[in-house]
Amino acid sequence: MGKTTDLRQAAIELHRRFKGKIEVRSKFPINDTLTLSLAYTPGVAEPCRQIASDKEKIYDYTSKANMVAVVTDGSAVLGLGNIGAAAALPVMEGKAILFKELAGVDAFPICLDTQNVDKIVEIISLISCVFGGINLEDISAPRCFQIEEKLKEKVDIPVFHDDQHGTAVIVLAALINALRLVDKDITKVKIVINGAGAAGIAIAKFLRRAGAKGELILCDTKGIIYQGRKEGMNFIKEEISRLTNPEKKKGDLTFALKEADVFIGVSSGGIVNSEMIRKMSPSPIIFAMANPIPEIYPEEAYRAGASIVGTGGSNYPNQINNVLGFPGIFKGALEVRARVINEEMKLAASLALADVVKNTLRKDYILPKPLDPRVVETVAAAVASTARKTKVAKK
Amino acid sequence: MGKTTDLRQAAIELHRRFKGKIEVRSKFPINDTLTLSLAYTPGVAEPCRQIASDKEKIYDYTSKANMVAVVTDGSAVLGLGNIGAAAALPVMEGKAILFKELAGVDAFPICLDTQNVDKIVEIISLISCVFGGINLEDISAPRCFQIEEKLKEKVDIPVFHDDQHGTAVIVLAALINALRLVDKDITKVKIVINGAGAAGIAIAKFLRRAGAKGELILCDTKGIIYQGRKEGMNFIKEEISRLTNPEKKKGDLTFALKEADVFIGVSSGGIVNSEMIRKMSPSPIIFAMANPIPEIYPEEAYRAGASIVGTGGSNYPNQINNVLGFPGIFKGALEVRARVINEEMKLAASLALADVVKNTLRKDYILPKPLDPRVVETVAAAVASTARKTKVAKK
Repeated sequence: MGKTTDLRQAAIELHRRFKGKIEVRSKFPINDTLTLSLAYTPGVAEPCRQIASDKEKIYDYTSKANMVAVVTDGSAVLGLGNIGAAAALPVMEGKAILFKELAGVDAFPICLDTQNVDKIVEIISLISCVFGGINLEDISAPRCFQIEEKLKEKVDIPVFHDDQHGTAVIVLAALINALRLVDKDITKVKIVINGAGAAGIAIAKFLRRAGAKGELILCDTKGIIYQGRKEGMNFIKEEISRLTNPEKKKGDLTFALKEADVFIGVSSGGIVNSEMIRKMSPSPIIFAMANPIPEIYPEEAYRAGASIVGTGGSNYPNQINNVLGFPGIFKGALEVRARVINEEMKLAASLALADVVKNTLRKDYILPKPLDPRVVETVAAAVASTARKTKVAKK
Repeated sequence: MGKTTDLRQAAIELHRRFKGKIEVRSKFPINDTLTLSLAYTPGVAEPCRQIASDKEKIYDYTSKANMVAVVTDGSAVLGLGNIGAAAALPVMEGKAILFKELAGVDAFPICLDTQNVDKIVEIISLISCVFGGINLEDISAPRCFQIEEKLKEKVDIPVFHDDQHGTAVIVLAALINALRLVDKDITKVKIVINGAGAAGIAIAKFLRRAGAKGELILCDTKGIIYQGRKEGMNFIKEEISRLTNPEKKKGDLTFALKEADVFIGVSSGGIVNSEMIRKMSPSPIIFAMANPIPEIYPEEAYRAGASIVGTGGSNYPNQINNVLGFPGIFKGALEVRARVINEEMKLAASLALADVVKNTLRKDYILPKPLDPRVVETVAAAVASTARKTKVAKK
């Protein structure tokens, strides 16, 4: 408890001392009249004129090419839930500085004080000309799926909901390396995902695309999700249950985990126990990513026979954290002016991320550390080259 | 012509070299895991929680307190007209870096790809929680008046349309000093304003408030504006004509200028000639602010008998430029967390700006230079103290 209190207090002090985390700077000093007249009137009229006659020149003469909007409606912030636009701002500023510090990408927080899907889509599309990419953040399911889909139809820049795709990219990278260590094949393992919000749904879809052809069960608080289930369903759970559970299996998480090779938790703290782990297949892999309390603590999971355990926190080895993904993914996409971040680019990001530590793999080191300088460059290069290969790069 | 071409080319090169003008930076480096965990998860949850329970804390823990949105819809950009949101971005970035370089105020461009008044108001209000103030920019009249008025009702942060109020503040400061030099009284002079867009309307209103009780005639391309005029009217011209022209005078600009003491042009190049100047009162003051070509060139105006001439450009003395206003005005308003920028604050800004050069006044030096370091501090202090005096300061 003391540690938690200290951390909270230190976080408050940091935020108060600097009055937030971002600042908007000029790329060059304005200390003479000539620079003033070039950067502002009358000189600035010329880049305006040229953009007016050729829209693509906005990438040459403005900061758009390297600028990401970090957009939220505050409906699903961290583990805090629906705290609204204003209270979400510290997270969005945090994301913005990680973009800049880790990848040199400029990012600016847009906190929308509405939770209406169509309004959100309209606003983002109408302010999008300033940005080269849109990072959606902390928007609740299932609205996040609708917002992302509708927005992609409206804008010609990459739209990426990090809670979905960022998480899925990192989980796949972690899984690839964990499976290497326990010598299992991704096409054959049985995987159970608990949590059917943005992350759980995206992980399920992405693992399928990445070759997880075996049993893939998605659970939520009501147990296994199956077509036609009465309680706690929505359109996306219906859709995903056709992908994950064609046999319409029913049951609770305990039942689902029997003989499973992999548990992926994006749910809430403490809902997995030793008994459940013991009934999994030999050498089970446990990614207990609930924050701040994991679905099961690593010590307990290992005692119950887990072979490899990862969590969302920095206080244990194998932190499965989005910060390993979004800076490099956007950097790569922006570098080649990708129109979208497609499945192939995300897959390339996962493989690249896994490969960073391929030759130094240990059970307590399946992913690089968040601040490992190799991560961004490797991921960005893979994403950029895959954008070119898949013909979505505009340069 | 060579000079103009050179300037254009140099402006393009500057914009291309830096790929735009703004960047979003972290206020501190993130180079260890502790800082990462305080600025981002899990530490960032604590400022979020506190803001969720006390909205005002957003001013302590985020960059909002010092962050201005520079908002346009691209409908009236510089002298270029309605070039749209994207092509307006270089101007907005220019404004943003002037905020930062001159006043230490962070500012971010918001370019709205709609020209619907209600939609613009809604969007700005729904994204306003990230900002401590709204600078409206380059929005065409009469929509700009409606947008500003409606927006002020929706948000609790200062809204300031710089083309209106910024221009009016600087013009008043210039006029105060020019009148000092020719020893005339603002309450008695006859003033003719040509141009009834955002700037002209605002200047007329503001000069009235500042004590210009004499004849004040507003003209547009159809001549003197009077109540019930058939051509080229709109709601704001009707309103202003009641304020400026109760006698319903009619006629063209030539007629209006007879016996006038002051000409203020916010219109278009070359529409005033020597003959018109010669028919003004003795020691006439000419502010020919059209850009890039003034209503009359200073050489010609002086030859025709003008006593003091100012323009909008930096290539002549007495540049009447908004950059003398908005950085300090917002700095002062943000410092005391003003809810609005009211008439008293604007008036204080004008007086403070005029006073900067009060003791060194010459006919070719009625205003300080744009980069004069005294300007921002003096204007900000006047605005802040007046906000407190008029009870609109929240701290």
